[in-house]
Order: sequence, then structure tokens, then C-alpha cells
Amino acid sequence: MASGVRDPREIRSWDDEVDVLVVGLGAAGAAAALEASRAGAATLVLERAGGGGGTSAMSGGVLYLGGGTALQKACGFEDSAEEMFKYLMASSGLTPDEAKIRRYCEDSVEHYAWVVAQGIPFKSTFYHGCSGEPPTDDGLVWSGAENAHPFRDVARPAPRGHVPQMTFQTGPLLMQKLCAAVDASPARVETNHRCVALVQEPDGSIVGAVAESFGRTRSVRVRRGVVITTGGFILNDEMLAAHQPLAARCRLRVAADGDDGSGIRLGIAAGADTIHMDAASISLPVTQPWGLKRGVLVNAQGQRFINEDTYYGRLGERALFHHGGRAWLVVDDEIFEKPDYDFALAAVGETPGELEREMGLPPGSLEATLALYNRHAARGCDPVFHKQPEYVKPLVKPPFGAIGCSTDDALYAAFTLGGLRTDLDGRVLDPEGQPIAGLFAAGRASSGIAVGSYSSGLSLGDGTFFGRCAGRAAVRGR
Amino acid sequence: MASGVRDPREIRSWDDEVDVLVVGLGAAGAAAALEASRAGAATLVLERAGGGGGTSAMSGGVLYLGGGTALQKACGFEDSAEEMFKYLMASSGLTPDEAKIRRYCEDSVEHYAWVVAQGIPFKSTFYHGCSGEPPTDDGLVWSGAENAHPFRDVARPAPRGHVPQMTFQTGPLLMQKLCAAVDASPARVETNHRCVALVQEPDGSIVGAVAESFGRTRSVRVRRGVVITTGGFILNDEMLAAHQPLAARCRLRVAADGDDGSGIRLGIAAGADTIHMDAASISLPVTQPWGLKRGVLVNAQGQRFINEDTYYGRLGERALFHHGGRAWLVVDDEIFEKPDYDFALAAVGETPGELEREMGLPPGSLEATLALYNRHAARGCDPVFHKQPEYVKPLVKPPFGAIGCSTDDALYAAFTLGGLRTDLDGRVLDPEGQPIAGLFAAGRASSGIAVGSYSSGLSLGDGTFFGRCAGRAAVRGR
Repeated sequence: MASGVRDPREIRSWDDEVDVLVVGLGAAGAAAALEASRAGAATLVLERAGGGGGTSAMSGGVLYLGGGTALQKACGFEDSAEEMFKYLMASSGLTPDEAKIRRYCEDSVEHYAWVVAQGIPFKSTFYHGCSGEPPTDDGLVWSGAENAHPFRDVARPAPRGHVPQMTFQTGPLLMQKLCAAVDASPARVETNHRCVALVQEPDGSIVGAVAESFGRTRSVRVRRGVVITTGGFILNDEMLAAHQPLAARCRLRVAADGDDGSGIRLGIAAGADTIHMDAASISLPVTQPWGLKRGVLVNAQGQRFINEDTYYGRLGERALFHHGGRAWLVVDDEIFEKPDYDFALAAVGETPGELEREMGLPPGSLEATLALYNRHAARGCDPVFHKQPEYVKPLVKPPFGAIGCSTDDALYAAFTLGGLRTDLDGRVLDPEGQPIAGLFAAGRASSGIAVGSYSSGLSLGDGTFFGRCAGRAAVRGR
Repeated sequence: MASGVRDPREIRSWDDEVDVLVVGLGAAGAAAALEASRAGAATLVLERAGGGGGTSAMSGGVLYLGGGTALQKACGFEDSAEEMFKYLMASSGLTPDEAKIRRYCEDSVEHYAWVVAQGIPFKSTFYHGCSGEPPTDDGLVWSGAENAHPFRDVARPAPRGHVPQMTFQTGPLLMQKLCAAVDASPARVETNHRCVALVQEPDGSIVGAVAESFGRTRSVRVRRGVVITTGGFILNDEMLAAHQPLAARCRLRVAADGDDGSGIRLGIAAGADTIHMDAASISLPVTQPWGLKRGVLVNAQGQRFINEDTYYGRLGERALFHHGGRAWLVVDDEIFEKPDYDFALAAVGETPGELEREMGLPPGSLEATLALYNRHAARGCDPVFHKQPEYVKPLVKPPFGAIGCSTDDALYAAFTLGGLRTDLDGRVLDPEGQPIAGLFAAGRASSGIAVGSYSSGLSLGDGTFFGRCAGRAAVRGR
């Protein structure tokens, strides 16, 4: 039979029986378990690691929320569900999931209140000058490309990065609080349990699961629904080779050990459809501090390819997916400052020509690029890639330098965005768009609202939001 | 239950029973049926259309074969399985299927002999000057990027496009002969039968299929194996939206009505894995006649992005997937000639600056690109993209023109290359890499050797070759 699926008739006796089974205790799993158990369903969470947290606990802890949350208001920012919707529709690839984005934006204010109600603290102060996690304990940050071309002309920009109060890397705090909330809920949690198969009736419905713990196999009968929240597949080289081989070149794979696509594969074995399996978030945080946005990012042909002031996730996606992960940020002596992250000064030169030779670029290529850039920059504009005037100035003061932005010398942080195809209730769909009875998914085991282009906080945001939807829907059952 | 799968216990009585069922009668289906029936298996072919042929009959009929075929030898070309292997490994994306490419190259000489033995005529003459289908009835053509950077330095170039003898569009002839061979074989063919479900035992093995014909449902019990050869999904907008939305922008979708991914979806419903679902062949035949390779292809920023002398499939893939399908081929009065395919002269100008304004490109962008190109071209070289010297000359003779190469004004011909994951025997694999007993696939319903970058003839080539492998393996059964 298909690995990953068992025939109920094989199971002599069930070791356990619950209403709702949640597989994986990251942000999405916690949200699903909280909603299911509070609705009165006997809920069991199986986590393969020794404790909860998953990849969410290794993240920056930013949640992308908006539409006028209490935090946005407290910091004096105006936002609306409609402006948030317009931004996400424009920035989420060519085929955004309009229904999910609409629901997410309309319920974002309520979702923020729910997150706060789980005991997660947010300081009502705004930090300007970074994209994503701030170096302070401020609660609100910019975390996308709202202020950059082309989005600034599509929707009114507003900061939507909501950050739990703690200095830097707040993911652990977020998950500590969410796991504490799960512990305080009626849901049962069993760690060191790895789900190895779904139990599927001949009619296709999911009625249980089989887990392994320290070599012991354990079967769980599920009366209502199984919610898969096992994360993405950035750690699975075979799956990356089949769907997005370039992502394997990234130095940092943002993932806990569990992100090997196990839950996605369980769903596929049960007949589930998958979508956007080639999508990934690729961060290239080379323009932090923001002053470095005044640099010129070039590829191996010495050509610019993007407005350097956009969100660093877009820089990474363009550089990796469209230019083979070979790029440099060219600066002059006036704008150079030390990047926040490890960096290598790949080349230095007294003239653009000398820098070009040091970089090993085709003769005249970088000289031509800088000449054109400087010609327009002298008038404070960038008609080629539309960088905002505040970051446009001629690069003329020697020495010139090239900060390495290639996969072999820069930090590229990657995780996958494709996965099981789900509806608004987190129901897993088959290739005809029909729900597989009793099977639900959320978080990066599913493909969420973020594909095509990323903004910090979208995965924790849609993972917790649609994790809650899946938890509630699972209670309603098959 | 998952749409597309039936429980055998639902089937009261079988309407038909065979050893091997082939779903779809294109090139891959014909090859599978011929091998299975000749091996003595009771073989039935179900074709949803009124007759055989499928997309193969709408193709150029080119088969990518080599390694020293009788035709290559007759035309005086030396080739080897090893050189062919090196080219395909280098040109088939970042994660080529080494085992399949190895087998395909090693058996290519034998496979050509098999194709000839099916009654398909090839004239032992070579045509130089096109990529793919020749305007003559010559039998051998160049059909890939063997002569262009970077492949010319990786493997010794040889023409490998094998074209049935007929003037232009030889796909119909190819399929007429293959279908005639099937008719003359012991295999039964039933047209106007659309396969709507696979019959799957609770243990996962495939034991039959359900088809519809003029509203009547018909169940076929299959003793050994079902071979899915239903083609790709370029006509399914929902699947394109989920896997490769840019392909939907192409003016020409190379497909018969059946290419809606139906067979791929049947496999997914049965628990099959899919790979490279974002891969597609995108032809932009703008450099025919080859003299136009002397032009300069630029994007919406007025930048070059590829060596213009490479295979037009590579031009299309780069232009569409990396530059949004917005491009122009810039020529001067000396090299301009009428392209073989419909074309639009998007702009004309007495100077590069005037042409640039006419094209609506950023001020100075095209001027800078042409200045750099001409500076090197004056010495007959192209250090930026490595176009071959024979196609490199300065563009200096006014008037200058821009041939439209954008999706809205040029011919982009597209078909999908991703599909069901199969092994060397065409066995369909689940996400753990285990075969689904009794299920096989070939042709574009499966992902073959061509992903990442295409060469004319690879789909008819691997479709017929691995179709034969699947037909033989199906006879061996579950």
C-alpha cells in the first residue's frame, strides 16, 4: 500500500481514542489545539520532538497583522483591512488566494486580540529602521515592502510587524507562551511521538493515525479530525530537488528538525493535492542598516535587477531564483557602513573599473551600470527600478566596495511556502478540490497566503490564524 | 472518498477485463500498447477523443535521439551516448534525473531503430539553419542548444533532431504511423472513452479503472497494470495557477483537448507523488532565420539577459520566467530580415536613443546596453553572455528596430513538463519513493528527462522510450 496510509482493518486494537488529533506543536498546532480543546473536543497533540515549539520557536517571532489592531492604534498608525488586503493581493504572487487573504485581513484585528489573550506581551512602541525583528523590545515594526515600489502606489503603507516584547529573536517567547496556553488547556500533549501514517477508510476518510515513540508503535482512533501542522520541507533535500533546488543553496535553512515534509507526504499518500511547491521565502538581509539601501545590487553581468530599498525577502528571492544566487551590493566610501549580519567585502577599488576587475565582472559592465545609475541619481531619481528618492544618491566617492551577496558568501535564510492544498477551514483538498473527510492542515505543512513574495510575520500570522480555523473545523468533524 | 478513486467493493460487476490498460493514445500510449500487446498481454487502450494522436499529433514530430543513430551516421555526424549524456545532464535543470538520462542515451540508437520499425520514414539528409522542424523533408536537424554557450564547452555538439519524412509539422504523420502500428497489433483501442477513476484496493494497489463514454459508465478490471499516458496540464487554468501561472500568458498552448491534467490528478488521488510541477517548455521562435541571432534581446529595463544564439526554448524560458514575458529583439538595418513566424515591429528609430524612447524604456538604458555590446562586438566577442562570434557584430546601421518578443505581441508556445513521479520502468511512486502497485505512467502525464531547459524532440523522445519501458513493466504486473 502507499507508505504513510494504513487500512483500519489492519489495526487490531486502538491504543488511544480522541475527537481531534493535532500532529505537531508549533504555532499552527498550538492554535489548532487551543481552539479544538476549548470547544470541548477531546484533543491530543503529538509532537515528534522532546518539547513543543518547532520552527516557530526558532523564528523572529514577528506576526504580520493589521487592519487597525490595538497595537497599530496605540502607536499612532492608521490601517484598514482593505489597505492590508490590497497590499497582500499585490505582493503574494500572480495567483494570490483571494478568499484566504480576504478572511485573514478582515479578522486580523480580532486575531491580534486572541494572540494577546494567550498571554503574549506586546509593547506599544514603534521601531523604525529595520525590516522584521527589531534590536529593541518595541512591539511594532515594518516587516514588508509596503513602502517600496510598486506597492507604495498600490496600498497605503502601514507597519504590520507585531513583535512580542523581548529583545531580539522573540520566537522562543512566543512559543513558550503558546505552549503554556496549551498546557493550561484541556488538550493533552505527548512529545517524542512521530506520526508515521494516517488511517484511511476505503471511502477515503481519515479515521486515525499511527505514531512511533522510542520504537513503540501506537495507534490513535480519531472521531472527528486530524490536523496536520508539521511544518515545511526545507530540510528534505530530495523534496527540494524535486520542487525548488535553488533553495538548497541557502546557508541558513530556517527550520527545526521536523521540517522534512513528513506531514505533507502523509497527506499526499492519502490522496491530497499540493500547490506552490516551488515557493520559498528567501531572506537576504544585506540592507540592514537601511542606509545600505543606497547601494547598488548587481548580478554576475554587472546589471542591477531590483529596487534595493525593497524588503530583503524580495532581494533574496530575486537574487536566488532569477540570478542564480550570485550578487554584490556596490557601495562607495560615503554610504558604506558595517552590515548588521556577517558580511564579506568581496572587492575594493579606487574606480568603478578597478572594482569591476576585482569582482571579475565582464569588462565595462559595472562601469556602464554605475554611469547610468549615477546619471539619474544626480537628479535624485531611479527611472529603471524606481527606488525611493531618499535612498538614491550618486556613488562617486572612492574607494568603492562590493559586499558579497552570493549564496557562498552571504546569509541567505530559506524556508518553504508550498504544501497541502486547503480551504478556508483548513480542510485538505484532493486534486478535484473535494475535501478529504477528517483531514485538516495549517502552517507550513499547507500552502498559505504567502507565496510569490514574502513579508516577515506572514507564516506565524497565517499559521496561527488558519490553525485556529482548522481546529474549530476539526471539531465539527467529517 | 477521494474523487478519482473507487473501492473495488463498489463495483458490482466488471464490464471488461484485461491484463494491461493504457489510458490515452498519444505517442507514449501507442508505445506502451505496442510493447505490452506484443509481449502477449491482453491490452486495451482507452482514448477520450474520437481518435488517437493526442498532443503528439499536433507537435512538430521531432524526436530527440542520438548516440550515433543510423540517421546521424548516414548524414555524416559523429555522436556518442556519452556526449549526448553530458549535454542532457548539463541542460536539464539543476537536478537532472541521471538514471533516466543515462538509460535514454545508452538505448537511443536502439530506440531509433524501433521507431523506424514502426513504419516511420526518415530521409537520410541533414538540414542546417533551423532549431526543430525544418521547412523541408530532411530527416536530421539541430534541435537544442548544443552549439551555444555554455553547452558547446561541455559536450561535443551533434544534431539530434530526428524528423519523419514529410514537409513541415510531421507530428500528424508520426502519430498516423504509430496508431496504424497499434491497430495492426493485438491491442484493442476504444475511442471516446474518458477514464474518470482508478480502482484501488485498500492496500493501495490499482486493480482497474472506470471510464465514461457518451454518458455510460464502464468498469475495466486490470490484472497487471494501468499505464497513464494522458498528457500534461497546460489547458488546466486552475492547475497552472497553482504551479506555473506565467505559462498561462503564452499565446499558444501546445495541446490537444486532453491536456487538462486528468491523468495526473487520477494518480494524485491514488496517492502518487508529483515532481517539477512548475516546469514548462516555453518556445519563443524569434531567431528564425538564424541571422536574427545577431540581434540583441532586451528586457523592460533595456538589459540583455541571455546569449541570443541559444535554442529558442531557452529564450522563451528566460524571457517568461525571469523577465515577466516582456522583451524585444533589437536589430539594425543590416541584420534585419523578416522572422519566420508572425511578428510585430514594436518600434523603429534612427538612433538607439530614439528607439529607446519609442519602446518606452528607461532613459539611457538601451543606449548603455548597445554601447557596451557594440564595444565588444567590434572585436567580435561577447564577454557578457558569450554569444558565438559568428553571430556577434556591432548594431550601428540605422534605422534601428525592435521586434516585439513580449507575451502580448509574440508567439510563445507552451506545454508543461511536470507530472507523476516515476522510476525507470515507468512505475508511479508515492511520496516515500515506493511504487504504487499496478500503476504506471509515461509521456507528459509524468515528469520525464526534460525539466529546467528544453530541446525539441525530448517529449516525443522520452514519451515513446519510457512509454515502451512502462508497457513492458506493466506486463510483468504488480
